[in-house]
Amino acid sequence: MSLELFERHQEKLDQACAAARSRGYWSAYKEMPSPRVYGESAQNDGIKAFQSHLGKAFEIDQPHNGTTKGSEDGPFGVTFDIDYPAPDVNAMMTAAKAAIPAWRKLGPKGRAGVCMEVLERLNARSFEIAFSVMHTTGQAFMMAFQAGGAHAQDRGLEAVAYGYDEMMRHPETADWVKPQGKNDPLEMKKKFTAVGRGVALMVGCATFPTWNGYPGLFASLVTGNAVIVKPHPRAVLPLAITVRVIRDVLSEVGIDPNLVCLAVDTLEAPITKEFATHPDTKIIDFTGSSEFGNWLEDNCKQAQVYTEKAGVNAIIIDDFDDIKGIARNLSFTFSLYSGQMCTTPQNIFIPKGGIDVNGENMSFDDVAKAIATGVEKFLSVPERAVEVLGTIQNKAILDRMEQAKGLGEVVLDTTQIDHPMFKGIQCHTPVIVKLNGDEIDKYSEELFGPIVFVIATEDTADSIQKMRKTISEHGAITLGMYSKNEDVIAQVEEAALEAGVNLSINLTGGVFVNQSAAFSDFHATGANPAANAALTDGNFVSGRFRVMQSRR
Amino acid sequence: MSLELFERHQEKLDQACAAARSRGYWSAYKEMPSPRVYGESAQNDGIKAFQSHLGKAFEIDQPHNGTTKGSEDGPFGVTFDIDYPAPDVNAMMTAAKAAIPAWRKLGPKGRAGVCMEVLERLNARSFEIAFSVMHTTGQAFMMAFQAGGAHAQDRGLEAVAYGYDEMMRHPETADWVKPQGKNDPLEMKKKFTAVGRGVALMVGCATFPTWNGYPGLFASLVTGNAVIVKPHPRAVLPLAITVRVIRDVLSEVGIDPNLVCLAVDTLEAPITKEFATHPDTKIIDFTGSSEFGNWLEDNCKQAQVYTEKAGVNAIIIDDFDDIKGIARNLSFTFSLYSGQMCTTPQNIFIPKGGIDVNGENMSFDDVAKAIATGVEKFLSVPERAVEVLGTIQNKAILDRMEQAKGLGEVVLDTTQIDHPMFKGIQCHTPVIVKLNGDEIDKYSEELFGPIVFVIATEDTADSIQKMRKTISEHGAITLGMYSKNEDVIAQVEEAALEAGVNLSINLTGGVFVNQSAAFSDFHATGANPAANAALTDGNFVSGRFRVMQSRR
Repeated sequence: MSLELFERHQEKLDQACAAARSRGYWSAYKEMPSPRVYGESAQNDGIKAFQSHLGKAFEIDQPHNGTTKGSEDGPFGVTFDIDYPAPDVNAMMTAAKAAIPAWRKLGPKGRAGVCMEVLERLNARSFEIAFSVMHTTGQAFMMAFQAGGAHAQDRGLEAVAYGYDEMMRHPETADWVKPQGKNDPLEMKKKFTAVGRGVALMVGCATFPTWNGYPGLFASLVTGNAVIVKPHPRAVLPLAITVRVIRDVLSEVGIDPNLVCLAVDTLEAPITKEFATHPDTKIIDFTGSSEFGNWLEDNCKQAQVYTEKAGVNAIIIDDFDDIKGIARNLSFTFSLYSGQMCTTPQNIFIPKGGIDVNGENMSFDDVAKAIATGVEKFLSVPERAVEVLGTIQNKAILDRMEQAKGLGEVVLDTTQIDHPMFKGIQCHTPVIVKLNGDEIDKYSEELFGPIVFVIATEDTADSIQKMRKTISEHGAITLGMYSKNEDVIAQVEEAALEAGVNLSINLTGGVFVNQSAAFSDFHATGANPAANAALTDGNFVSGRFRVMQSRR
Repeated sequence: MSLELFERHQEKLDQACAAARSRGYWSAYKEMPSPRVYGESAQNDGIKAFQSHLGKAFEIDQPHNGTTKGSEDGPFGVTFDIDYPAPDVNAMMTAAKAAIPAWRKLGPKGRAGVCMEVLERLNARSFEIAFSVMHTTGQAFMMAFQAGGAHAQDRGLEAVAYGYDEMMRHPETADWVKPQGKNDPLEMKKKFTAVGRGVALMVGCATFPTWNGYPGLFASLVTGNAVIVKPHPRAVLPLAITVRVIRDVLSEVGIDPNLVCLAVDTLEAPITKEFATHPDTKIIDFTGSSEFGNWLEDNCKQAQVYTEKAGVNAIIIDDFDDIKGIARNLSFTFSLYSGQMCTTPQNIFIPKGGIDVNGENMSFDDVAKAIATGVEKFLSVPERAVEVLGTIQNKAILDRMEQAKGLGEVVLDTTQIDHPMFKGIQCHTPVIVKLNGDEIDKYSEELFGPIVFVIATEDTADSIQKMRKTISEHGAITLGMYSKNEDVIAQVEEAALEAGVNLSINLTGGVFVNQSAAFSDFHATGANPAANAALTDGNFVSGRFRVMQSRR
């Protein structure tokens, strides 16, 4: 059994490894929710499968301590009322740890085969997972299907490929023969074994439970670790389904399914710290607030900690002719999932004296207005708008929008849209507020949600300087820029290297600064305060196992 | 210029990369101090070059603050009296940081070429460096030449190869073309740049300044960082020469030599903490005490910290027929550099009921005696003994030997040997002390120096259990075993994987448990308290840089 799954999926794994090295376009899973790809009945089956979870106990046979409901309150109005097993921390850690030796013995290929099989089965359940992502996070369906389904699976596969590649970097055995002049050579047989670090903890987030969760989960698994999956209490179901699929495959290949356990808590009684500081927890993956990410980094010294936290993503606007292109591209960028992406730009730096557009000066206010008008037009048809905006994930974000409006002149106010399908839900357009460059305290921290600041700087050099300062000190995952001057582009490229942020230049078409494609785009850099790791590079996987040597 | 050095050395670099992947025997630099290899006059030139440093100011033009003499007191009786520049911490950090952008722009190939050229020049100065290693560390000449010269250069090259390979894992540019059905595809040009973390601090040790220092130094350099080299105050000269060679090559290729600076302090006025906690220090490599290593790990959160610390290396002796082979092999192992290696075994676990040797029981005491007699015989000719033992590095080690003798029955007492060349120096044979297995407090911490405990356990299963406990809790870099039972070997292999230590099995010939060959043996595992990193694997290099992306 152990290599059967590997052989079944080897071709795709090899393609994934090759794609990760060449970094051109490649994707393993189809992003269109099309009946031709997923089957005529896939969508209806997915809805039914999703609904079948509601109001019931989620069946998963693992060490537990009663039940809990998480804090899933359905931003589209669906009542979850699912009973998940409540974790018994010590019993779960013990059970997970006990499952590791057999998992190690399966070897890199055996483990990669299991991970690939899991991903295939998750892909087959993409609709069920998409509806569960949609109704926990508030994403519109298409985004939930793409980011929560195929793209998350691609990111998971990418992690499997990097982990597999890293373990295969060294052979399992080697002969060492050292010549000794006229004497017989010295000879040794050497054996090298990739050994996982122990139990890994994956802490999910409320907005992208699968996309942000799968990389750490699969990177830890393939490299030989057990994983405790601790979903955000608002977005449990997508990861609960994922864990159950993993446990099914593990059982089928004769591995104790407690290798991967689901740990559900509530907003009122969180348990992450208890798992994170457990002496047997050797790896932690976290996506969420800077406050908690920093706490994990500072307090979990027994573990390798990989974090993605908050940041102040930015756009620098310099002289540029296609102002409509800017407005069109940024309208979508700001609106997608109501700006609740870790990659959505917040700070738009524009020279206060305006920019050159086709040889004519366009004032700061006109540039800001062009963008605001673009957003307004783009969201003018409610049926279309709600399919991009989705809903506001939680009330704190609404409060933050009100707060932002008090900081400066409101260039574009938010409006509430009535969702044609889901009545009474929180669907709001982005708010755009004008700030002066020297009001740095107002824009140097992340205000998560559909909040955009247009910031009047002295000139583009000043924009660059303020971008560098805010990103170096407070982090960012994305930086965008628009300029027709190659020397300005070169300056921003250099500044981006120094600030440690990935840069997108002159996007006016169908690619957006907040999108990041597996196998080609690195997500975050690990080089600024927004994240200490990147999805996915060698460093994301190489610390999750150690090579042990035996020689004779 | 930038690619000229790369092209000159590319063949050797490619060979090194291939050797690191295949892990068979390979070495780039000749380990025999032979006139045929290094030239007829090489040895005399090396002595003269070494002597020319003594009693003078060491010329190196870098930001400084007066002079310091380090604490080099010459264990073979040589008077150093060298004036090194005393570091001005902030000025040095500022200068090093300022040199980074040009170094980054040289690119992975340009930097690898510079590092290779440095290693070639260090190799050409192997005799000079060997004498400076010998007279600072107390190693005998042959060991100083091999471990301090060729083997250290091999470890440096290994780090260059891993760093280069890791950076070349991703292309510098890629075209991303995503099909859009009937519409035109989405197209992006992407650029990927490996960017170092900033300023690295390499903290050298007193016993193996080059062997333990070069891996971190070259790994940081090739991946685009500046490096502050902070030698142990007792062993400055080998690293001072190294830094000067690096600065020469940097100047020749037009890079500001302050990219690599030498920071010398004294035992009385250490400055490591000041450098280590500087906000611009982003990488730290350290070899030395667990106390200080743990302090660095706990207090330098702004940096990636790679440590090699103390441990309790062990040997498990089970039934074995070639008892002479054990005694012969361990005699050399215990004697080499007076047991002052991080790889020398301390705890020898032997069943109290003895072992089976060729079908007959050999009692615990007889096994212990066979080993003791082996050591005694091996060191019976002073001229030969001193060439293996070298000298005791510092007085604390002599005190520790006295302390060890008080812990149990002395099986072999230490004797002082008169060195035929260097009068009055501290040349001492190892001490062997018998302990009971349950006296775990006596042997669970490292007593660094020529101190061996033979420990009477219940049986081999108990030996394995005690090895696991001491190594899991206190760390180890090496574990050896002797057994003729394949099932016992399998048990120890499994236990070694769990304890996270590299294992050597049944060494009776010319390979010793405390030797570790670049490109084939991993030195330490990073999986137990003795070290958080291994020399060298992907994880040792991948955290020293980040990939930044620019796309348009």
